[in-house]
Amino acid sequence: MENPVKVVLFGLGPMGKLIAKGILEKKGIQIVGAMDIAKELSGKDVGQFLELGKNIGVTVTDNAEELLSNVKADIAIVATRSYLKDIYPTISLCVKNGISIISTCEELSYPYYKHPKLAVEIDELAKKHKVTVLGTGINPGYLMDTLPITLTGACQRVDNIKVTRMMDSSKRRIPYQKKIGTGLSPEEFRKMINEKKITGHVGLVESIAMIAAALGWKLDEIKEFAPEPVIADREIVTPFITVKPGQVAGLKSVAHGIRGGKPVIVLEFVSHAGVEEEYDAILIGGVPKIYEKIAGGVHGDIGTVAVVVNMIPKVLNAPPGLLTMKDLPLPSAVTEDMQTYLSSKVFSA
Amino acid sequence: MENPVKVVLFGLGPMGKLIAKGILEKKGIQIVGAMDIAKELSGKDVGQFLELGKNIGVTVTDNAEELLSNVKADIAIVATRSYLKDIYPTISLCVKNGISIISTCEELSYPYYKHPKLAVEIDELAKKHKVTVLGTGINPGYLMDTLPITLTGACQRVDNIKVTRMMDSSKRRIPYQKKIGTGLSPEEFRKMINEKKITGHVGLVESIAMIAAALGWKLDEIKEFAPEPVIADREIVTPFITVKPGQVAGLKSVAHGIRGGKPVIVLEFVSHAGVEEEYDAILIGGVPKIYEKIAGGVHGDIGTVAVVVNMIPKVLNAPPGLLTMKDLPLPSAVTEDMQTYLSSKVFSA
Repeated sequence: MENPVKVVLFGLGPMGKLIAKGILEKKGIQIVGAMDIAKELSGKDVGQFLELGKNIGVTVTDNAEELLSNVKADIAIVATRSYLKDIYPTISLCVKNGISIISTCEELSYPYYKHPKLAVEIDELAKKHKVTVLGTGINPGYLMDTLPITLTGACQRVDNIKVTRMMDSSKRRIPYQKKIGTGLSPEEFRKMINEKKITGHVGLVESIAMIAAALGWKLDEIKEFAPEPVIADREIVTPFITVKPGQVAGLKSVAHGIRGGKPVIVLEFVSHAGVEEEYDAILIGGVPKIYEKIAGGVHGDIGTVAVVVNMIPKVLNAPPGLLTMKDLPLPSAVTEDMQTYLSSKVFSA
Repeated sequence: MENPVKVVLFGLGPMGKLIAKGILEKKGIQIVGAMDIAKELSGKDVGQFLELGKNIGVTVTDNAEELLSNVKADIAIVATRSYLKDIYPTISLCVKNGISIISTCEELSYPYYKHPKLAVEIDELAKKHKVTVLGTGINPGYLMDTLPITLTGACQRVDNIKVTRMMDSSKRRIPYQKKIGTGLSPEEFRKMINEKKITGHVGLVESIAMIAAALGWKLDEIKEFAPEPVIADREIVTPFITVKPGQVAGLKSVAHGIRGGKPVIVLEFVSHAGVEEEYDAILIGGVPKIYEKIAGGVHGDIGTVAVVVNMIPKVLNAPPGLLTMKDLPLPSAVTEDMQTYLSSKVFSA
């Protein structure tokens, strides 16, 4: 490990923790700094916090500016917030310190639709400081955008695209189950929807916008529907929560990309306890018609860690700017020393 | 169509013809030249030859050098031969004339394993003349390399990869059915294998090498097995041929990428009349385990036309050199005017 990739972590919540563990399992990469706003983490060694049974010699800080003035890093992993405005100060700080970024911020995965001005601003700032910025994860970032885009590559004609994720939420973390309303009454669910305490899946709009951009489609609009509760018709026992018949087992988030008055891109995100069959399915209407399915689906947390870590060398090899998954070479697994994948000859074999 | 993409076609066999038709269906692109070694095509208008019921104003020639001295083209589509040495003169000629290339030549899809010297030579020549060269198609080029590579992007660990194409050959062209031995006796099949008159599927080795390169895996070796006949256990009636019980219905081509003594990449190409269920399946052993399947499979000819045409803007946007599918951005369908996808701002949105 002559010259390992140096990473700083922003955000040590559930995802940040899993990403940190994922990075520590790889060779040719090292964590050189870690920041979280939670005061109680400050001063703890990352290894201690991750319960690795040993220190890794990196202390968590709550002061981002101080951290970046003390360490030299190649890439920042930002796993803090879902909305672009909330993470903009962190992006700006890293970019100005010459550090490339991969973030799980859902809105960053394709910010050119909802936040075109901010996106251009980030793009220009990144180019100025010669760093690359990418928002990604399993969804948005992979299952509902990268994968359907890739599948259209085998099509002579594309009329419409439907992507369905059918997930058994009972396998997920308890905060996740609460986030989708598991165990609520339908009334409580509606109330929390109205109060925006339940937002449904963030990222459908970004995935639709990325697919449309890849296909060169100008959409009339992207319609995001309020999440619908999925009501249990029987008692569902999960490791964490027991859902009674009539209670909310989870939710369904749907968004449509409309073109010529028709929903040409339909994304359905269904996550509840007691799902009969888990899968991630893509149906492309066109020539040829493509019906693709990942049996069992891809576990959200595991997939997000994978995509984030696997994109590190792609981002480090890429030209500067704010990129999206559709602009980068094919995603692929990092299974060897991270330095294996780094090259000044990016686009050649 | 202010400044359409200008294409020259090399090879007007069955695939070349289908690609020509595929291009003529698109906007923002025009065929400006066509070459085939078959003397009987010389002087015919491409439109006439394609039975379009109208001329397109481009005459087929058998003289490549003359053709390129008369027309200015952005890209050449080379659909002539399967082996790199056979198409090298055409590649060299196009590159020296400043024309980028997409070819269905199977060995060009990942030539760095079987023909490392020639690959480097083409890469250097392409860079010198500032053009881009790509070998692609549905397979090799997409189903057994691009797609499994992309799927590993969601994996934290990859232990092994198995790709199976299960195809009903009775839907394919008659020359294709003959190529896989349909209707032969097992003895005739073995004889033709020994005489290399039946070669099985060309491209498995290239697909394995591309997957290994994407994963950074150093393989001990790539083993390509002689194609095995699939024997009919009942009478199979196809639109072209009736296969009697005991006769050859088609074949199975298998290749292994060996690492640490184990077959870590296994590609199975099965094509015969009377297949019960057609599919293209990818199984990735790892974390997470991924079982992906395209129900019904992707029709080879339709898919190859799609991939070749869809990669035109990616190749025109790419940096110069000999690239492979793993080096280029995600494939995606060209559904609008070809010029929509061209940009000097390739990697930005």
